[in-house]
Amino acid sequence: MTAPLPHLPHHDGSPLHVSSSAPSLGERVALRLRVPTAFLESVGGLKAVTVRSTPDGEPAWDAARPLGTAGGWQWWQAEVTVHNPRHRYRWLLRTGAGEVLWLNQAGLERLEGRDVDDFALLAAPTSPDWLAASVMYQIVPDRFARSAAADARAAPDWAELAAWHDPVDPVMPSRVQQFYGGDLDGVVEKLDHLEALGVDLLYLTPFFPAASNHRYDATTFEQVDPLLGGDEALARLTAAAHARGMRVIGDLTTNHTGDGHEWFRTARADPDSAEREFYLFDDDGADGERGPGYESWLGTPTLPKLDWSSAELRRRFIDGPDSVVGRWLRPPAALDGWRIDVASMTGRLREVDLNAEVRQILRRTMDRVAPGTALLAESTNDATEDLTGDAWHGAMTYVLVTRPLWAWLCAPDGVPHTTADGGTSSEPWFFGQPLGGIPSGTAADFAASVTRFSAGIPWRIRLGTMQPLNTHDTARFATHAAEGTVPVALGLMMTLPGVPMLFAGDEFGLTGADGELSRTPMPWGLEHRDPAAAERLALCRELVGLRRRHPVLAAGGMRWVHVDDDAVVFLRESAEESVLVLACSAATAFEIPQEALPGLDPAGDADDAVERLHGSVRLVSCSGSVHLSAEGPACGIWRLAGVPVPE
Amino acid sequence: MTAPLPHLPHHDGSPLHVSSSAPSLGERVALRLRVPTAFLESVGGLKAVTVRSTPDGEPAWDAARPLGTAGGWQWWQAEVTVHNPRHRYRWLLRTGAGEVLWLNQAGLERLEGRDVDDFALLAAPTSPDWLAASVMYQIVPDRFARSAAADARAAPDWAELAAWHDPVDPVMPSRVQQFYGGDLDGVVEKLDHLEALGVDLLYLTPFFPAASNHRYDATTFEQVDPLLGGDEALARLTAAAHARGMRVIGDLTTNHTGDGHEWFRTARADPDSAEREFYLFDDDGADGERGPGYESWLGTPTLPKLDWSSAELRRRFIDGPDSVVGRWLRPPAALDGWRIDVASMTGRLREVDLNAEVRQILRRTMDRVAPGTALLAESTNDATEDLTGDAWHGAMTYVLVTRPLWAWLCAPDGVPHTTADGGTSSEPWFFGQPLGGIPSGTAADFAASVTRFSAGIPWRIRLGTMQPLNTHDTARFATHAAEGTVPVALGLMMTLPGVPMLFAGDEFGLTGADGELSRTPMPWGLEHRDPAAAERLALCRELVGLRRRHPVLAAGGMRWVHVDDDAVVFLRESAEESVLVLACSAATAFEIPQEALPGLDPAGDADDAVERLHGSVRLVSCSGSVHLSAEGPACGIWRLAGVPVPE
Repeated sequence: MTAPLPHLPHHDGSPLHVSSSAPSLGERVALRLRVPTAFLESVGGLKAVTVRSTPDGEPAWDAARPLGTAGGWQWWQAEVTVHNPRHRYRWLLRTGAGEVLWLNQAGLERLEGRDVDDFALLAAPTSPDWLAASVMYQIVPDRFARSAAADARAAPDWAELAAWHDPVDPVMPSRVQQFYGGDLDGVVEKLDHLEALGVDLLYLTPFFPAASNHRYDATTFEQVDPLLGGDEALARLTAAAHARGMRVIGDLTTNHTGDGHEWFRTARADPDSAEREFYLFDDDGADGERGPGYESWLGTPTLPKLDWSSAELRRRFIDGPDSVVGRWLRPPAALDGWRIDVASMTGRLREVDLNAEVRQILRRTMDRVAPGTALLAESTNDATEDLTGDAWHGAMTYVLVTRPLWAWLCAPDGVPHTTADGGTSSEPWFFGQPLGGIPSGTAADFAASVTRFSAGIPWRIRLGTMQPLNTHDTARFATHAAEGTVPVALGLMMTLPGVPMLFAGDEFGLTGADGELSRTPMPWGLEHRDPAAAERLALCRELVGLRRRHPVLAAGGMRWVHVDDDAVVFLRESAEESVLVLACSAATAFEIPQEALPGLDPAGDADDAVERLHGSVRLVSCSGSVHLSAEGPACGIWRLAGVPVPE
Repeated sequence: MTAPLPHLPHHDGSPLHVSSSAPSLGERVALRLRVPTAFLESVGGLKAVTVRSTPDGEPAWDAARPLGTAGGWQWWQAEVTVHNPRHRYRWLLRTGAGEVLWLNQAGLERLEGRDVDDFALLAAPTSPDWLAASVMYQIVPDRFARSAAADARAAPDWAELAAWHDPVDPVMPSRVQQFYGGDLDGVVEKLDHLEALGVDLLYLTPFFPAASNHRYDATTFEQVDPLLGGDEALARLTAAAHARGMRVIGDLTTNHTGDGHEWFRTARADPDSAEREFYLFDDDGADGERGPGYESWLGTPTLPKLDWSSAELRRRFIDGPDSVVGRWLRPPAALDGWRIDVASMTGRLREVDLNAEVRQILRRTMDRVAPGTALLAESTNDATEDLTGDAWHGAMTYVLVTRPLWAWLCAPDGVPHTTADGGTSSEPWFFGQPLGGIPSGTAADFAASVTRFSAGIPWRIRLGTMQPLNTHDTARFATHAAEGTVPVALGLMMTLPGVPMLFAGDEFGLTGADGELSRTPMPWGLEHRDPAAAERLALCRELVGLRRRHPVLAAGGMRWVHVDDDAVVFLRESAEESVLVLACSAATAFEIPQEALPGLDPAGDADDAVERLHGSVRLVSCSGSVHLSAEGPACGIWRLAGVPVPE
C-alpha cells in the first residue's frame, strides 16, 4: 500500500476558487489558492504566490495576496483580467525555503509544466447551467419500449422482425437489420420508470429514418422515422419529458449520412445537383482511399462522408434556425440539445481540417435558436484538443474515466460470445483497442489517468463531459466487472466531475459482450422477477438520487485525498457542503489526517461531523485522523460541512 | 545516486526508425521499433507490436512484424500510410506476460498516453536540409564589428555615441540609445574569425532602420539601415558568407513595427490611408487595453501592434515575392531565412487568433520565392502548440533546453548589477520569470524537462529548434554558471538534437547580468590578451567542429542511457555511427551495461571500440559494463560504431 497523498496546495475551477465560471473578455476574475497550514510549515512559509497567464501567447504575472486562514488552510487571491476566450493560467509559489513550485491541472511540481495543462477561464458563450447537474440516460429507440401503435406499422424492407424477448443476433447482416420495433411513444410510456430512477436527461440515439436498426445511416434529416411514431411522437416525448422536468437530446451524424440519404441519392444520380458537393466523390478529385467511389466513414460504403467545404451543406444542415440543427431545437420538437456522432472526424480529411469551423457554426446556431441547449461531441479517444471551449460543452469520450475504470475494476479475461462474422471469441472487447484483453490497472493508475486526461480540459468543459460506464457502442461494464465492483463503479460515476450516464438496462444489471450484444431490448419488469435486478435498480435509484440532491457533485471542486493500489478517496468541495467518496476494489484500511478534510474540526470527533450518505464502509475518527476500512469492494459516500473560507 | 535507466524499447524520428523524414500525403512509411533482448526476456517476449495512428481523428491500427535481431536488439517494423499533414502515431506492445505498454514521445508507459505526446510524421513541405546541420551564431549588428566606413556616417538624432570599449549603459534611455556603430561590413571583416570558429549560420538581429540600438522598432522594411551600410552592405555580407559556405538569416518583427515606421506615421496622420488598417487604433474599435490610443507590444507605445486581418498588410509584408518577406530572400540580399520576432503573439489579440494564417502565408511565400530558406519562430515559452509542422521549421524558445540547463548548472544567486531604472539589483534574471532566483534542478530534472517539452514537438521540427545557452535577450550563461560548468553546457548544446547557437562573445567567455549587459561590443583580440578567453575560444572551436564533423549530431536519434542527480548520458544514433555523451555537474562514477550501447560488442573490450572525441572523462570497460567517472563538472564525448540493423 502506498502512503497517503501529501496534503498539498489546491486550486480548481470550482466556485470556491474562481469567482466566475463564465466571465466576459476583459472581466476581472478573482482566483483563489488554498495552502494547508501544515504544508506552509514544511516549506518555511510562502514568500510569494503569483498567477501566470499567457495573454496573446506571452506570459504575464499577477501577484496574489494572502486572504487569511480558515479551517487549516491559508487562502491566497489574485485578480486576473480575462484576455482571451480561453484564458490559461497557472500558479507559481515561492517558498520560504527558496523552492519554486508550479501548480496547474497536472498537479503541483518543481519542474515547469506545459501550457496544455494550465487551468483555463472560458470567456466563450457559457454552458447550459443544467448540464453538469443532470444525470443522463441513453436510449436506443428500437430497443427501449414498444407502444401499441407500433403493431400497426409496416416494417421496412430491410428489417428482420424480432419479438421483444428474442435474443440479439450479433451476426451480420442481422446485427444491423434485426428489428424490435421500439418507438418514441414507448419511451413516453416508460417515463414513470425514468422519473423513479431519477435520471433527468434522455439521450436518444438517432431517430431519423434509416436503413438499419441503429439509424446512424440516416436517409433524411427532415422527419422523425415514422417507424418511431414520426414528428408528432417526438413532440409528445419532449413535451411529456419537459412536463416532468426532464430534458431530451438527439443524436446527429455530422461526419456522414446513410448512402440512402436523399442528399446522397440526388448527388450520386445527378453530378450537376446542388447536393453533389455535399460529398467527396472520387471523380470530383477525391481519391476514395477509404471508400468505394466516394469517401466514407472508415471505408464503410453505407456511410458516405460529408464535405463541409460546401456552403450549401452548411446552410441546410447546421447554419441558422431553418437548418437541420436549428429546426429540431425549435418547437414542436423542442429538443434540449445534440450529441454529435463522430464529432472528432467531422470535417477532417487528409489535408483538410474544417472541424473547428463546423463545430463553431453548429454552436452558434444553437445559441441563437435555442439558448441553453447542450452540444456534446463524440470523441472516443483523447478529446483534449477539440475541447477548447470554443464549441463543445463536453465530450462523449472513453479515455477520461471509462477506460481507466475498466482497467482497474474489470477482470482481464473475456466472455465467449458470437462475433459479427458469425465466429466465436472470448477476446474481450476493450473500446476498439487491440490489447488482447482488458489491461490491468490499480486504483492509483485510475486516478493518474483521470488526472492526465482531464489536465488539458477547461474545468467548465470537464463538468459537461459524459462519463459512461458503458454505452451502446461498448460491451456492458457488468459483463466484465470483477466480483462486487459494479456498485463501486456506479458510485464513482455518480460522484466524479462530469455528467454521469446510464445506458438503458444498466439499472437492471444487463450484460453484453460487445456493442451489439449490449443493445438488448429492455426486460421490463425484471425487477419483479429477479432479486439481483431489483437490487441493482434500488442501487441506481439511490445513487442517482444522491447525485441530484447534492449540487456539490455537479459543480463542486475535486481533490484526491488518498490513492493506493486498491482505493481512491476524493472530495467534492464547496462552501456549502462537501462530499467525501471512498471507492475500493478490495479489503482496505487506512487513515486520512482530519486536516485534509476541511469542514472537520481537526481536533474534533469526525464521527459526529460526518453524515453517511451511502454504503457501509467503516469510518471512525481517532486522534485527529479519520480511519476508513472496508471488507471488500465498496463505495462509501459521506457529507461533510462546507469548506470554510476566510471572511 | 539513482539507478541506471532501465534498458527500454526505443523509437524516435531519426532515419534508423523512420524511412522518410519528409513523406507526402498517401506515402507508405516504414516505422521501426527496437526492443532490447534483455527487455524481451524480462517481459516474456512480445505477443504483438502495433502502431496506432489517428487518421482524421480516430484511431487506426497497423501491425508490426519482427525483422530480426542485431546487436542485442530485436527490431519490429510496421508500415503506415501518411494520412494527415501531421500524422501522429504511437506504439502498442503486448508482452508475453500479458502486459500492455504504450510508447510515444513521453516515453514507455503502462498507462495510455495523450495524443499531444505522440510521434508525428510531417507531410507538410519539408525543412531545409541544412538547418539541423548548422551551428548558429547570433550577431547584434551595432555591437559586433565596425568597419572603417562607419566613421564617415552621421549618427542619428536619438543616438548617444559610445566608443567601442565604453561599457554598456543599462539605464534607460541610454539602454536603447547608446550607439556603438557596428555595421554589416564589420561583419564581413570578421568572417575569418567566424569561419575559424566553425559556425555556418549567422543570425542577424534586425538590420532595418529604427529609432533604437536594438532596431526591433523598424521605421521601414524597404531598406537596410544606412548606418549599417545599406542594402549593398547586406548583399556584400550574404555574398561573402555564401562564398564561405555560410548562411545568413534576418530578424523580422511581424507582431509590431516601430512607432516611427512609415506605415504607422501614415496611419496615424491619415485615418483614411491604406495603412490605417495595419494597426489597431482605439477609435477604430480596439480598446487599447495595453496601448496608448492603439494596441502595442505589452503596452509599449513605441511598438504598435499589427492587425493581420488587413489584406493589404498581408500583401505588402508577407504574401508573395514582392512582399517584405519575399524581397529580402531574393538577390541581391539573398537571405537564407528569417527569425520571426514575437512570433508567438503575432496575429493574436483577445478573441482574434490569426497566427496560423499569418505563419502559413509567410512560409508559403518563402517556399515559393526561395525554396530551402529557414523560418524560425521566437516563442519564448512553451512553443509546442505552434510547432505543428504547418509553418515554423523550429523555434527560438527557452523552455526546451535553455531554462532546464540553467536550473541544473547555474548557481541560484544573482550578481549585483545596474537595472534599467538606474537602481541596483542582485536578483538574477531568469527569463522574465519572477522566481526570486534561478531555480535549482538536478541533472535528472534537466532530462525530464527536455523530454517533457520536446514530447509535443514533431521530430523534424525539434531538429530545427534553436537551443541557445543565452541570447541578446538574456543574461549570459557564463555570468551565473556554477564553477566549471560552462564546458558542460557547451558540450550539451553541441550534442543535443536541435540547432546550437552561440551569441557573439560567448566564444570569449563574456558575461552580462541581463539582456542589455550581455550586448557588449565584441572585444576583438581578447584571446591574445586573456588566457581564459583563449581557452574558451579553443573549446568553442573544438565543440563546433565536432558538431559539424558528425552528421549524427544533426539528424541522429536520441536516447537517454543514464540519468541521476549529477549526470546525464545519452546517445545520438545512426546506422553509420553513434556518439555517446556524458555531462556531469559534479564528481561522478557509474557504469552502463554494454548492451545499452549498440555498436559495442557486449562481450568485447569497449576501450578499443570507443573513440574519444572530447573531454577527459574516464571510460573503461569491464565485464560487459562501461565504467564512466569524472572528478568534477565535465563533458565527455565518444564515437561508437553505428547501430547494427538486421539485414
